[in-house]
Amino acid sequence: MTGFSFTVHATDGTARAGTIRTAHGEVATPAFMAVGTAATVKAMQMRDVRETGTDVVLGNTYHLMLRPTAERVAEMGGLHKFMNWPHTILTDSGGFQVMSLAKLRKVTEEGVAFQSHIDGSKHMLTPERSMEIQSVLGSDIHMQFDECVELPNTREEIDRAMRLSLRWAERSKSAFRGGPGQAPFAIVQGGDQIDLRQASARELVAMDFPGYAVGGLAVGEPQEVMLRVLDETVPVLPAAKPRYLMGVGTPDDLLQSLSRGIDMFDCVMPTRAGRHGQAYTRFGRLNLKNARHATDPAPLDPESRCPAARDYSRAYLHHLVRSEEILGMTLLTWANLAYYQDLMAGARAAIGAGKLGDYIAETKAGWARGEEA
Amino acid sequence: MTGFSFTVHATDGTARAGTIRTAHGEVATPAFMAVGTAATVKAMQMRDVRETGTDVVLGNTYHLMLRPTAERVAEMGGLHKFMNWPHTILTDSGGFQVMSLAKLRKVTEEGVAFQSHIDGSKHMLTPERSMEIQSVLGSDIHMQFDECVELPNTREEIDRAMRLSLRWAERSKSAFRGGPGQAPFAIVQGGDQIDLRQASARELVAMDFPGYAVGGLAVGEPQEVMLRVLDETVPVLPAAKPRYLMGVGTPDDLLQSLSRGIDMFDCVMPTRAGRHGQAYTRFGRLNLKNARHATDPAPLDPESRCPAARDYSRAYLHHLVRSEEILGMTLLTWANLAYYQDLMAGARAAIGAGKLGDYIAETKAGWARGEEA
Repeated sequence: MTGFSFTVHATDGTARAGTIRTAHGEVATPAFMAVGTAATVKAMQMRDVRETGTDVVLGNTYHLMLRPTAERVAEMGGLHKFMNWPHTILTDSGGFQVMSLAKLRKVTEEGVAFQSHIDGSKHMLTPERSMEIQSVLGSDIHMQFDECVELPNTREEIDRAMRLSLRWAERSKSAFRGGPGQAPFAIVQGGDQIDLRQASARELVAMDFPGYAVGGLAVGEPQEVMLRVLDETVPVLPAAKPRYLMGVGTPDDLLQSLSRGIDMFDCVMPTRAGRHGQAYTRFGRLNLKNARHATDPAPLDPESRCPAARDYSRAYLHHLVRSEEILGMTLLTWANLAYYQDLMAGARAAIGAGKLGDYIAETKAGWARGEEA
Repeated sequence: MTGFSFTVHATDGTARAGTIRTAHGEVATPAFMAVGTAATVKAMQMRDVRETGTDVVLGNTYHLMLRPTAERVAEMGGLHKFMNWPHTILTDSGGFQVMSLAKLRKVTEEGVAFQSHIDGSKHMLTPERSMEIQSVLGSDIHMQFDECVELPNTREEIDRAMRLSLRWAERSKSAFRGGPGQAPFAIVQGGDQIDLRQASARELVAMDFPGYAVGGLAVGEPQEVMLRVLDETVPVLPAAKPRYLMGVGTPDDLLQSLSRGIDMFDCVMPTRAGRHGQAYTRFGRLNLKNARHATDPAPLDPESRCPAARDYSRAYLHHLVRSEEILGMTLLTWANLAYYQDLMAGARAAIGAGKLGDYIAETKAGWARGEEA
């Protein structure tokens, strides 16, 4: 009826492989979403992003509302057309970034008043305004407006923000104005407090959202804390709805989380690392600035489908990074996105074959072994 | 016998259309060479450079000898392989850039001693070392080592540098170590002094180089001075050899110069302008930073073959430029290179049809008219 759907094709333990259908196509899950903050996946052409196997790009409401503004994007035909990405787009609510980037924030029951980090101009984000912006941008998945606190934090503060986010979830759902194939997602909060996480999840499930995110993780806590929260929270979420772990993470974070039933991820790591000379590969993480790559004629990965990983020597990448050439950022970002997508494709295939445990073990062995073998 | 050749297919007045054949393919002339300073055409993938119709890329000896060093490039299989460009490469001699970029230069009969602008390390370029570096890089066309003086300048200084460059031309030719399909080019100097230009050209013609460049122009003098030098110098050069005007220029400079018999050009303008928010189009030059583009849904040129010029709105390009996103630099560089190559392709066709005058008049009318008509 809404045109938005999620189908699970296979499970392996608590992990599952499936398909999300949106107004702009299909998303194979577990899915890694490329971060396209300001209507561009930094340093990349969208054609190349697509070729890595990316099905979804994430747009940031906070950035887009400030520049070029949601209304401008709408005037230009919506975010898909604006950035030449005809596939699925998820927008965040601005809640996380308004807390991490904006100046002079003031949180009230109504929402968050803040000043732009770009020009100091004054703005207000509320659940209603966030959903309106996401609707105006035309994204396929709209995230509820929430408040995310840093960890570690007091139980009192975590509880306060979680309860506020619940009230904002209801207002967000009421304000959702998407059409067929579009859907609002709720966000579980509760920090590292298991009972608060479970309370948040239960309340949100009662509101019957088409999808559920787990927010407020990977904000400074150890990986084991994050995984314990997932272990205790994911079972509370409905099996028939997609589950999205926000802002996560390293390749290992992704494998650990998808094996706990997470279906969607987004993270700046592959793109940001690519702009800073770092490469993620089957053999672990490499720093291309390192002098040992200066005379290495080997590509990042001769068996990669990705031209950036396959067709350029490490010596060349080292040269580009050392010379601060834009192409170095482009090629490493591209190779990193391709690696993340290959990792997800491998996980999907392994879940389908009931061999996720083997896949994770082999993948981790590759990282540990490096290229010595 | 050398495998390097130049064939003129058509002439229109003093303009000609032809083909240069090198060890790495054919170059349709008049040709615009994309500048690939540090083994990369800045902000571009070579796949896209090729798709603009680029047949030759220029590499800078000065930059490459300092980083990653010519020997490192050779170790990695040569410049073509290093930068994934299997087509023709021309390298300059380092003469121009050592004078404009390096620190603590000292020019002697032997060559130029200097310190790197990157790390202050001490180096020496001589005609012999420049030709050795170009041979080690493996480029197809090697430029003689020369001394280029700024304009305006004293006749005495222009004369001195021109005579020195003649002696360095002989040493460069003797030191040339290219194989089949590779060739050394001489460089005419003499500033804005017509008799010195002609003397330089005559002496170089007597040395019988496979190609001739006109250097030391577009270094601050008015266009009319440059064109007068071409009018008086080009006729001294042999009709059967390619003629290369170094470091030039604007689209109009190119049309004016090719109509005077120039066959090859290189210039940073399209690439540098692209990194600074400027676009060259059939309708003239646009500054995408300008607020008037913020709400313009039109692409740079709906009729362009170039995806960058055709598939993105000016509003999007404006947003990317204002947001200092790398994709903005990439798309504008790409569109500019495509425009330069389209301009050359149009000139080649017009020369073939004997209608170069009409083509230039129509092109200039388009720039003057802008998009009002």
